[in-house]
Amino acid sequence: MRIGELSRRTGVSVPTIKYYVREGLLQAGQLTSPNQASYSELHERRLRLIRALIDVGGLSVAAVAEVLAAVDDPARPVHRVLGTASTRIAVERGDDGEGEKEAARGEVEAFLARRGWCVDRSHPAVESLVGAVTALARVGHGSLFAEVLDDYADAVEGIARADLDYVGRRVAVEDLVESVVIGTVLGDAVLAAMRRLAHVDASVRRFPPA
Amino acid sequence: MRIGELSRRTGVSVPTIKYYVREGLLQAGQLTSPNQASYSELHERRLRLIRALIDVGGLSVAAVAEVLAAVDDPARPVHRVLGTASTRIAVERGDDGEGEKEAARGEVEAFLARRGWCVDRSHPAVESLVGAVTALARVGHGSLFAEVLDDYADAVEGIARADLDYVGRRVAVEDLVESVVIGTVLGDAVLAAMRRLAHVDASVRRFPPA
Repeated sequence: MRIGELSRRTGVSVPTIKYYVREGLLQAGQLTSPNQASYSELHERRLRLIRALIDVGGLSVAAVAEVLAAVDDPARPVHRVLGTASTRIAVERGDDGEGEKEAARGEVEAFLARRGWCVDRSHPAVESLVGAVTALARVGHGSLFAEVLDDYADAVEGIARADLDYVGRRVAVEDLVESVVIGTVLGDAVLAAMRRLAHVDASVRRFPPA
Repeated sequence: MRIGELSRRTGVSVPTIKYYVREGLLQAGQLTSPNQASYSELHERRLRLIRALIDVGGLSVAAVAEVLAAVDDPARPVHRVLGTASTRIAVERGDDGEGEKEAARGEVEAFLARRGWCVDRSHPAVESLVGAVTALARVGHGSLFAEVLDDYADAVEGIARADLDYVGRRVAVEDLVESVVIGTVLGDAVLAAMRRLAHVDASVRRFPPA
């Protein structure tokens, strides 16, 4: 199909498609004449994935490029790709006071050790967690992490089991890796929305309107 | 304190502090001379909250302004403020095909009815969930929502209970509302990081390295 048709099918404008090609997110179409290229269903599928990661997952174009590089490298064994796909999605934030950060790191270390999670301490999500715990301390809610810790951990262990079951039911390896990426990024959006709804339900029950 | 001291304590630059004042996120300091203002600990606390919502929560300046307006209105009964604080944080995304969106809405409605969650169908998080489920369908993972639904719901019910317990232990109402905002936004960051770590742990156990 031509780029106009690809744009119509996906709702992504032609200049944006060209931008993704320039940034290496989307392969260039097959040239059919010096100034015309043809795009396939694979382009369409990839483009939908890019949009979902950006629109719903809130990833930057640079982060999407990194995630797709991991998806496209067939040399990686499954568990490494799973690790990498999760890794690239980690938020990097927080540049606050070093003392609070070291205290937060101690809390996170103790938490990981107590739960017995097999996680490399250099995993970027460890750093994200340390950043979030540091931010909580700086706004005077340093105890939140300690108070909700094990309830959250129980919950995410259940979520991770469901996520891995979902991924395990996918057949082809390229589908599998894509599933991990989609499940991780869009799963976050699903969970955040569901958590807000569960808050509403729980507060209405605890504080019934007059 | 002067604005320079406020900047030093919080790590937020003076022009950024002035920008927050212009945008209505932060109250202006008390004028002590025609071109000098004095800031209090309350300013410092509010500024830390603003930075946490932006840096760790990923909220826009406009979204922070809406959340803070809800925090600052003492006329709202607790359960409405809880609802509003969660509400304002909802992500608004997705503008895709109407057919897929209506199908996703049907799935979300059926899910809410089955779980018996007391949630107004006009709650913005319902729309966020519909958007995320629509995006999943468009990338060929429409079954993810159905497959992980009840495991996710069990998990977020546990999380919501822990969150409400945390909030319930706070004493003053203004602290309570601030706790909800902080817990919701920073809690999302904590949960996303923990979910990635739980993924790593679960994949290493299921697919052990050779």
